Amino acid sequence: MPRGQEPLLSQHRPSSDRSDDRSMEEEDALLTGQKQEPRKQGWAFWREIGLFAWAVIATALVIILAVLYQHQQQTSSPQPSGGDWKNGRPTGKRNLIFMVSDGMGPTSLSLTRSFRQTVTGLPIDDVLVLDQHLIGSSRTRSSSSLITDSAAGATAFSCGQKSYNGAISVLPNRDPCGTVLEAAKRAGYLTGLVVTTRMTDATPACFAAHVNTRGEEDKIAEQEVGEHPLGRVLDLMLGGGRCHFLPNTTDGSCRDDDVDVVGLAKKKGFNYVSDRKGFDGLNFGTGVKLPLLGLFADTDIPYEVDRRNMDDVYPSLDEMARTALTALHDATEDSDKGFFLMVEGSRIDHAGHGNDPVAQVHEVLAYDKAFSSVLDFLKRDDVEGVLVGTSDHETGGLAAARQLHDAYPEYHWFPSVLANASHSAENLAYQLRDHIAGKHISPLDTGIRTPPRSPDSSDSHSPSSSSDSKELKQYIRNLLSTGLGISDATEKEITRLADTSDPWPASYLFADMISRRAQVGWTTHGHSAVDVNIYASDPGQAKPLRGNHENTEIGQFMAEYLDLDGELKAVTKELKEGADAGAGWMGRGLDDEKVGNRGDHYEGDFKKRGLMDCGCVGGTGVEGHVH
Amino acid sequence: MPRGQEPLLSQHRPSSDRSDDRSMEEEDALLTGQKQEPRKQGWAFWREIGLFAWAVIATALVIILAVLYQHQQQTSSPQPSGGDWKNGRPTGKRNLIFMVSDGMGPTSLSLTRSFRQTVTGLPIDDVLVLDQHLIGSSRTRSSSSLITDSAAGATAFSCGQKSYNGAISVLPNRDPCGTVLEAAKRAGYLTGLVVTTRMTDATPACFAAHVNTRGEEDKIAEQEVGEHPLGRVLDLMLGGGRCHFLPNTTDGSCRDDDVDVVGLAKKKGFNYVSDRKGFDGLNFGTGVKLPLLGLFADTDIPYEVDRRNMDDVYPSLDEMARTALTALHDATEDSDKGFFLMVEGSRIDHAGHGNDPVAQVHEVLAYDKAFSSVLDFLKRDDVEGVLVGTSDHETGGLAAARQLHDAYPEYHWFPSVLANASHSAENLAYQLRDHIAGKHISPLDTGIRTPPRSPDSSDSHSPSSSSDSKELKQYIRNLLSTGLGISDATEKEITRLADTSDPWPASYLFADMISRRAQVGWTTHGHSAVDVNIYASDPGQAKPLRGNHENTEIGQFMAEYLDLDGELKAVTKELKEGADAGAGWMGRGLDDEKVGNRGDHYEGDFKKRGLMDCGCVGGTGVEGHVH
Repeated sequence: MPRGQEPLLSQHRPSSDRSDDRSMEEEDALLTGQKQEPRKQGWAFWREIGLFAWAVIATALVIILAVLYQHQQQTSSPQPSGGDWKNGRPTGKRNLIFMVSDGMGPTSLSLTRSFRQTVTGLPIDDVLVLDQHLIGSSRTRSSSSLITDSAAGATAFSCGQKSYNGAISVLPNRDPCGTVLEAAKRAGYLTGLVVTTRMTDATPACFAAHVNTRGEEDKIAEQEVGEHPLGRVLDLMLGGGRCHFLPNTTDGSCRDDDVDVVGLAKKKGFNYVSDRKGFDGLNFGTGVKLPLLGLFADTDIPYEVDRRNMDDVYPSLDEMARTALTALHDATEDSDKGFFLMVEGSRIDHAGHGNDPVAQVHEVLAYDKAFSSVLDFLKRDDVEGVLVGTSDHETGGLAAARQLHDAYPEYHWFPSVLANASHSAENLAYQLRDHIAGKHISPLDTGIRTPPRSPDSSDSHSPSSSSDSKELKQYIRNLLSTGLGISDATEKEITRLADTSDPWPASYLFADMISRRAQVGWTTHGHSAVDVNIYASDPGQAKPLRGNHENTEIGQFMAEYLDLDGELKAVTKELKEGADAGAGWMGRGLDDEKVGNRGDHYEGDFKKRGLMDCGCVGGTGVEGHVH
Repeated sequence: MPRGQEPLLSQHRPSSDRSDDRSMEEEDALLTGQKQEPRKQGWAFWREIGLFAWAVIATALVIILAVLYQHQQQTSSPQPSGGDWKNGRPTGKRNLIFMVSDGMGPTSLSLTRSFRQTVTGLPIDDVLVLDQHLIGSSRTRSSSSLITDSAAGATAFSCGQKSYNGAISVLPNRDPCGTVLEAAKRAGYLTGLVVTTRMTDATPACFAAHVNTRGEEDKIAEQEVGEHPLGRVLDLMLGGGRCHFLPNTTDGSCRDDDVDVVGLAKKKGFNYVSDRKGFDGLNFGTGVKLPLLGLFADTDIPYEVDRRNMDDVYPSLDEMARTALTALHDATEDSDKGFFLMVEGSRIDHAGHGNDPVAQVHEVLAYDKAFSSVLDFLKRDDVEGVLVGTSDHETGGLAAARQLHDAYPEYHWFPSVLANASHSAENLAYQLRDHIAGKHISPLDTGIRTPPRSPDSSDSHSPSSSSDSKELKQYIRNLLSTGLGISDATEKEITRLADTSDPWPASYLFADMISRRAQVGWTTHGHSAVDVNIYASDPGQAKPLRGNHENTEIGQFMAEYLDLDGELKAVTKELKEGADAGAGWMGRGLDDEKVGNRGDHYEGDFKKRGLMDCGCVGGTGVEGHVH
C-alpha cells in the first residue's frame, strides 16, 4: 500500500517525538531497498498530503462533534434559555416568580378544565396553561396537624420549614425564621407581593412579617411597610386589605388602634395608590416609582366572576401581576440582581371555603391567565428566570361528583349548570342582605370575609307580614334566576333563603343550590389533606421539584435558586436577636397546645355539636338518619 | 512570524485544492525577496511540522469531544440502565409491566401515607414507594361522560383511544380495537394479567376481550381463554372471578349458561389452579408451566385488611405479582422478546364505592408493596424493562377532611381511628347478615360485590321479639368494638344497623361510622372526575408521560415502548373482520344513547329520587333541611 494511502491512524504514521524526518526517510529506503534520491520529492509530497488529509479530517470531526455536543447539551441541560448555570442553578442575574394558588386542589383543575371545554365548545384535549406545566405534587401537612392552614403552608414556602397552623414565619419553638423574600432583599434583589385578598392575610404575610398567630393583621401591616427588625424588605405590594393600613379613626378601617400605616409607609418612601384610577396611573408598570403600595379594596378584591362586572373599580390578578413584572423588571434593569415576586390567586381558597363552584372555576381561570402572563414575561425577558407555582393546601374537599339520592349514582357532573351562573354565592348573599335591610344598594366591595348573614346579625330582620314574605320570595326567585340561572328552586329552598333565622349563611345556601344541580360535592368548609400540584415554567429549571415533595422543599428550592444560604442565615440571626430583645413585636404569645401536634388524636369529635344539632355531614348516604 | 508558528487556522495555511506546493514556495520567495534554494529544506520541514501539529491537536480534540459527548449522552439519556435505545425507546429485548390502581385518586395517597406514619410512628417525611415514583397525572374523561367508568378507562390504556362508559375495547362506532396486549402477543411477547377482582371485570377484560358492554362477563371469560378471533392471547392469569369460568350446573358458578370455561381453557393447553394449595405449588413462579389460569376466589379476593387473616386461603396481590414476574421472566429467558404484564390493585376502587377508609388504606398499602416488588424485579433483571402505573379514575370523592357540625371545622382528620379497625365494613356486614340469618358462620369468601343487605333481601329477617332485638344490639356493639374499634356508637347508629328494613346496606352504615369518626369525607358511592397520578419505575424511561396527559397517551406510550405499531394495526384489522363476520361474539348491541356524550346535560337530576326521599347528599351544611 502506498504510504500516502495508509489509514490516518496506522501504526506507521510519524509520531510527534520524531524531530528529524530524514531518518524516517532513510529507514524507509532501507526497508524498501530503493534508492533515496529518485523518490524523495514524491515521498515528501505524499507525506505532506497524508498529514494534510489527516488534519483536515480530524478538523472536520472536531466541528461535527462540537456541534453534536452543543446540541446535546442544549436539549438536556436544566436551563432552556441562555445564561450561565452551575450545579443546577444559574450563576448570573436572575428572577424568581413564585405563584400560589391558595386552596387549589387536584379537583379544581379538572373542574375548571371541563367547565371551559363545555362553555367554549373546545375539544376533549383542550387544557389549561397550568396543565401544560405540571411537574409534581406537594405534601402539605403542618407540624401541628395533618391538615395545614395557609399560615403554616406559606411558612413552609417562605422559610422552608414546617411550623404550626397559624404561624406567620415563626417556628414551633417561637423563633422567627428568615424568609426567602427577606434574604433576597438582603442580597440585593427587589421584592414584591401581588394578591387578591388582604395584603395582611397569611400567605403574603409569611414572606415579609413574623407574628405568632395569623390574626395579628394590624402588626403584619406595620411590618410590611418597614416597621420590621430588618427595616423595609418590600419594594412593591399590590392587592386588597386596605382596612388594616388605615387608623380606626378613619372610615374603612378595621384596625384596633389609630396607627396610620399608610402614613408610615409614605414616610418610608412608599408611593401609595388606592383605587382603579391610581392603578391605571401605573400604566401597567411603566409608570411605577418603587417602593409602591397599592391597596384596591377594603378587604378582598371581589371574586373574578363578580369583578369582571366591576372592572372600573378593581384591577384583576393578571393586570396586577403584569404591572408588578414590568415595574420590577425596569427597576432592576441596571442591577446585577433581579427580583423575587410572589403572586397569589388568593380567593380560590375562599371559593372552597364557601363551597362555591361558580366562584371557584372563575378564580382558577383568572389564576391560569396570570400564570400565562408570567410565562410570556419569562419568554420575552433576556434575564434568566423561573416561575414556580403551587398551592398551600386544598380547600373544601371538592369533588367533581356528588351523589344526590339513595339510588346508585350515574357517572356525571354538569358544568353547564355553572355556566348559567353569573354571580358568586357571596355576591348574591350581599344582595339578599341588602334587600332585606331595605338598602337596595349595589354590592360593589364584597367587604368582610365572614359570610354576610348569621342568626344574631343586627341589621337583618324577618319580614313582618305575609305580603312582605311573598315579595321577598319573589325577589329570591328573581335573584336565583338572574344570578345563578336556577329556575327549578324548590319551595323549601326558597323558604330557607327567606328565613333569616336559619343558621347557615345565605352564601352557603346559594352555593349548595348550585353545587347540587351541577353535582359537585364538598366535604367541609375548611381545608383538606390531599397533595397539591407543583408547576414550573420549565421542568428542567425546577428539576429538584419534579415528582412528589414535602412543601418545605419548595421553599428550599427557591432559596437555592437565588443562592441565598448566607443571607437566610444572616436575616434569621437578626430576627432572632430582635425577638430576644422583646417588646412583643411578634404579637401575642401562644400556649403549647396550639403549637403542638395533635393531628391524629381522636376525642369523640363526631358527637360534638356546633350551633345546632343539624345532622349536617360531608359524607354520602345516611345523613338525616343517624342524627 | 515564521511560517511554522502560524495559527493553525490562518488564512495562509495551504488549501486542499493546491496540488503543487512549489508554486507556493515561489510565491513566498517573491514576497520576501529571499532566494528560494537556501531555505527550501527548512520551509518544507516547518511546513510538515505545522501540518503534523495541526493534525495531532485536531485528533486530541476529537478524542476529548468524543469522550465528552459520550458522557453527556449517558448522563442525559432516557434509559437508566444498559441496553440499546433509539428514539426514546429500547431496540432490544424488553419487558413492560403496567400497574393499575383502580379508583385510587390523589387523596388515597395522603390518606394512606398519614395512616402509615401514625400507625408505625414514622416521621413526617416518611413516604410510600409510590410517592417516590410520581411523574405526572392523567385526565380521565371518557367519550360519553366527564366521569369515566373502569371500562372506558381501561380501553384508553389498552387501545390508546377514548370510548364510552361500559366499552370493553370497543370504540364508540362499535368497532373492536386491538389492544397493546394482543399486539404484544402477536409480536412474540408473552402476556399476563394479575388482579384481585374478577378476571372478567372491566380492567383485565379490556386487554384481552372485546364486548359492547362490561356486563358480558360470561363472554369475556370465554375470550380470555382463547375463544377469540385472534386465538389465545393470554399466557398467564392470576386473580379472582372463578364463577364466570364454571358451568351453571356447578356450585360456585355465576354463569347464565352451562359452558365449562375451565374445561375449554384446559383443552387450549392452560394449566389450572384454583386454590391456595395450587398457588403454593407454583412456587412463586419457578414451578409454573405456561399458559396458566389461576382463579382463587368465586368473585373478588377479600380486601387486604380481611385477607391478611385468611392468608391460608387467598394469595396476596404482591404474591401473585411476584409469581407472574418470575414465571414470565423464566419463560422468556431464551426468547428475543420479553413480556407484557398488567397488575391491578382492583379493590381500591371497591373500598371507594363502599366509602370505606379502612379497606382503602390497606388496599393502597398492598398495592404499594406490589409496586415495590415490581421495581425490585426490574432492578435485578438484566433485560430492559419499564413499570408504568396509573389509575383509571378516582372513586368515592374521597377527602381527608370532613365537617361534622355547623360549627366551623377544625383542620384535623384522625388516622388513629382507622388504625383501631381490624375489618372492612364489607366483612362486618357479612358477619351481621349471617348472624341475623342464624348462620353464625365465618365469612371467608366475601363473594358478591353487591352490598350484602338490601330491603328485599330474602334471607334477612327482622328480629321477632324484643329479647331478640336486645341480643342483636349487643351483638352489634361487640362487632363494632372488635371489628372497627368503635366504642362510642350512638343508640341511633345501633338501631339502624339492627333494622334490616333500612334502605342502606349495612356495609355503608359501618363505613359511614368509621368515616365520621376519622373525619374522612366522601361525596358519592360512584366515581369522580379528578385527574389521577402517573407513576413510573424511572422518569427517564417514561419521559413522554411526565406532566399532565390524556389517559389515552398512556396506552399510546405502551404501544410505542414495545414498538407495536404494525401489530396493533394487524390485530385491529383481524378483529374488525371478525366483528363484521358477525354472530354476536361481542355481545349484545347498544343503543346510541348509551354510547353518546351527554356529559354536561343537566336534566333537573337534583330532584330525582332513588329508593326513598332520603335527603342524603354529598355536600356540607344544609342537609336535612332543604329536603
